Amino acid sequence: MAKGPKNAISPTRAENYPEWYQQVITAADLAEDSDVRGCMVIKPWGYAIWENIQRRLDAMFKATGHENAYFPLFIPMSFLEKEAEHVEGFAKECAVVTHHKLVPDGEGGLRPDPESKLDEPLIVRPTSETIIGATFARWVQSYRDLPILINQWANVVRWELRTRKFLRTTEFLWQEGHTVHAAREQAEDETRLMLDVYAAFAEQHMAMPVIKGEKTAGERFPGAVATYSIEAMMQDRKALQAGTSHFLGQNFAKAQEIMFQSEEGQREYAWTTSWGVSTRLVGGLIMTHSDDDGLVLPPKLAPAHVVILPMHRNDEERDMVMEYVSNLKGALEAQLYDGEPIRVRVDSRDLRGGEKKWQWVKKGVPIRIEIGPRDIAQGGFKPARRDLSGPPQDLVSAEAFVASAASILEEIQQGLFDRAAKLRDEATVEIDDLKQFEEFFAAKAPGGLAYAYFTDGPEMEAKCKALKITPRCVPLDDDPQPGKCLFTGAETTKRAVFARAY
Amino acid sequence: MAKGPKNAISPTRAENYPEWYQQVITAADLAEDSDVRGCMVIKPWGYAIWENIQRRLDAMFKATGHENAYFPLFIPMSFLEKEAEHVEGFAKECAVVTHHKLVPDGEGGLRPDPESKLDEPLIVRPTSETIIGATFARWVQSYRDLPILINQWANVVRWELRTRKFLRTTEFLWQEGHTVHAAREQAEDETRLMLDVYAAFAEQHMAMPVIKGEKTAGERFPGAVATYSIEAMMQDRKALQAGTSHFLGQNFAKAQEIMFQSEEGQREYAWTTSWGVSTRLVGGLIMTHSDDDGLVLPPKLAPAHVVILPMHRNDEERDMVMEYVSNLKGALEAQLYDGEPIRVRVDSRDLRGGEKKWQWVKKGVPIRIEIGPRDIAQGGFKPARRDLSGPPQDLVSAEAFVASAASILEEIQQGLFDRAAKLRDEATVEIDDLKQFEEFFAAKAPGGLAYAYFTDGPEMEAKCKALKITPRCVPLDDDPQPGKCLFTGAETTKRAVFARAY
Repeated sequence: MAKGPKNAISPTRAENYPEWYQQVITAADLAEDSDVRGCMVIKPWGYAIWENIQRRLDAMFKATGHENAYFPLFIPMSFLEKEAEHVEGFAKECAVVTHHKLVPDGEGGLRPDPESKLDEPLIVRPTSETIIGATFARWVQSYRDLPILINQWANVVRWELRTRKFLRTTEFLWQEGHTVHAAREQAEDETRLMLDVYAAFAEQHMAMPVIKGEKTAGERFPGAVATYSIEAMMQDRKALQAGTSHFLGQNFAKAQEIMFQSEEGQREYAWTTSWGVSTRLVGGLIMTHSDDDGLVLPPKLAPAHVVILPMHRNDEERDMVMEYVSNLKGALEAQLYDGEPIRVRVDSRDLRGGEKKWQWVKKGVPIRIEIGPRDIAQGGFKPARRDLSGPPQDLVSAEAFVASAASILEEIQQGLFDRAAKLRDEATVEIDDLKQFEEFFAAKAPGGLAYAYFTDGPEMEAKCKALKITPRCVPLDDDPQPGKCLFTGAETTKRAVFARAY
Repeated sequence: MAKGPKNAISPTRAENYPEWYQQVITAADLAEDSDVRGCMVIKPWGYAIWENIQRRLDAMFKATGHENAYFPLFIPMSFLEKEAEHVEGFAKECAVVTHHKLVPDGEGGLRPDPESKLDEPLIVRPTSETIIGATFARWVQSYRDLPILINQWANVVRWELRTRKFLRTTEFLWQEGHTVHAAREQAEDETRLMLDVYAAFAEQHMAMPVIKGEKTAGERFPGAVATYSIEAMMQDRKALQAGTSHFLGQNFAKAQEIMFQSEEGQREYAWTTSWGVSTRLVGGLIMTHSDDDGLVLPPKLAPAHVVILPMHRNDEERDMVMEYVSNLKGALEAQLYDGEPIRVRVDSRDLRGGEKKWQWVKKGVPIRIEIGPRDIAQGGFKPARRDLSGPPQDLVSAEAFVASAASILEEIQQGLFDRAAKLRDEATVEIDDLKQFEEFFAAKAPGGLAYAYFTDGPEMEAKCKALKITPRCVPLDDDPQPGKCLFTGAETTKRAVFARAY
């Protein structure tokens, strides 16, 4: 989208990336700050993107044998105490419910009623391993009850000090999968299966290329034996962890007494997993594709694929244009894209054409069509693609456009993926020299993703801290040869991807 | 479903209706108590019913111009203070967050960190008029911004003393619609439109006949000018409020400063509405249709329409039966019922046939089909309908069954509605004599729904209290003639429906 010298979003990505991000959200009307510290209001356009994410992911979870259920928002404080690493990870940032009644404070306001103090405080769930684990302990008796494959769509709360819309908010929406298995190998398989589901979703639906890998010890989920993640690279070359899948071993089974009678009649601890993605994905979507004119949406997740803007100067023109538009809308909606009817919006608000057009540019709708009497007289219109710069395309007839709409959408979807993959690949390096590594991540260097041999330990962590980077993951599809740890010089065959990160 | 002298659910409805209700929930595996007081775990079969309710209602909301959004879980305490009746209604039963960190208590446990005490406590939303109203105040500037038509799917918390699964739980899932309008009449129209949507959903999807009406003053939502509800009658002749729609006048607009510039340039307070239904609907569904053998599901909301139970005694039989079953499943899934593919489950667990069959009876699946080698040899099978007692129907060929499956499902759906409507109509009386009214609601009388002339006031309320009943609503489609108030003798043209209620 070229708009001459001036762009719709100020500042631009080059000028101030973090501020550009906030301005894209505002310009696309995705979300806004609420009256509660760290919590946002997700506005209809932002929520519609989340609904599309939910619908697609939910189908993928069900196709892999999972069922949805719902567990309590509250977790008794004592539950958190049972898994030592888990409490360490979450007790420092949780909302604590201590009373169940308000009474007048005598000054015209309210205060918590001391009489209503709870015997045991309740925590608003930051994640549900403990409360779901306690439930699973009741569900599991015999190996015949296994596996249990459950997912929950829910809100969670983590009392974050520094928040940023979608990327890190005190309350956020997510799904958390929780599964129980009779054997270690089955739980490990499940952990990696769901990582694959996340990667497929990110790449095929979000058009966001990701690296699948295992987290280093310092980046593991509190209480997990192994944490896997998908890592994407944003346009500022910082990494974004977009989803995690945890192999919990028997840690939570032991903390919550999830035991079963094996086929051989032994009582054994079960093996569990958990995995989740959140509204953070919307932040990743924004930062992967958007440009200096605002949001750019991959068609598969766009609330509208096509927006039609009728143009007319009087009632007569209006009637003619609206009839044409209504027919076009109907014809488009009869076409399928990605297995669903093409989603069409008609914006017939009484608003200046330019203003209206720019609102939809900023909202990222893949295809815009302005239709006025002249277009109809000419026998067609000029669709504008959000992913391409320059003026709208050639004149096409309505019939030709309707027939090709689904393939144009797929071309846009694939084009966004290719562009993001190219940007990432160009910003990816293999480094086997510490000095080069330090230069790559020097404060003023653009940075990116650096593959380097490493051994997990204090030397690596200290160097990362100094460079303000983190090991993102040890890629699963990497095939490293024997090499030397960049930080200790020790022999190793493990490589990690290092990056600045959100 | 006859099972000879003994039924699958004990006690039966006649023996102990409240306990029967709990046992149906357990037998169908819908929900269970959690480790948190008053909160339940919604298990996969129960949650799948809720998902079907959500999907259908969500489509109806969108078809009437509403968009989904998401607002914070927490409400600053001071927000509750702004609307006097509202605080009166909700301050007494809310979860209060006072701290945001836990620290070791020195005895191996945890306690809220006094250092983390919040300056202002936060309330876990019992309903969101206040926080959404504060947001709307920012969204609304001019009459051009109106109407605002928003819905939210969310969890809410009310600290109920006595809870019962689905019907009344501390945390529950619901949707809450919130709208803003420029004129009183538009807000009133919206209030009644959504009442109509709820009534249509209840009758057409839940097969649950309802009465639409306006609540009396004592039963209004705290802060509303008028509250409308749909009221259903359960099999124990008690009424269940299944959905409410509130005309809030300018009360919340004034409390939250929701103002707009009118077409004439005046600054005016807006008019708002709110409306909601919750997981309570699942309770209503259970109590409307289920019988002494367990859950009975109306096909439109059943997670599975048809369950196929393959029967075989050896590997050879198994291969033959499973091939037949797989073909049948595919053929059924190619058929549409209610606009969606017919939902088929195959239960091939290694379990005794009788036990398996009874599990599905208790889960309420509309049609069960047992298929063994003999059926295949005979060229067909005998489908069993959950809504009919007696043995399975006549032998039908697979082709004939597939061709008629959708119409059988529709027949079941309609049959359940008719049965419920008949039960309700038989339990409905018109009473214009106080003594008769007292006898109708005497402690040992079966009760039901009583239409009676009334005037809203203390005499009516005192009598209702004494009889342990409530005025459910003033039916909208009633056409009462002038009459005499049953409680005061005053002239009136208003009739209410009175009943014992959940």
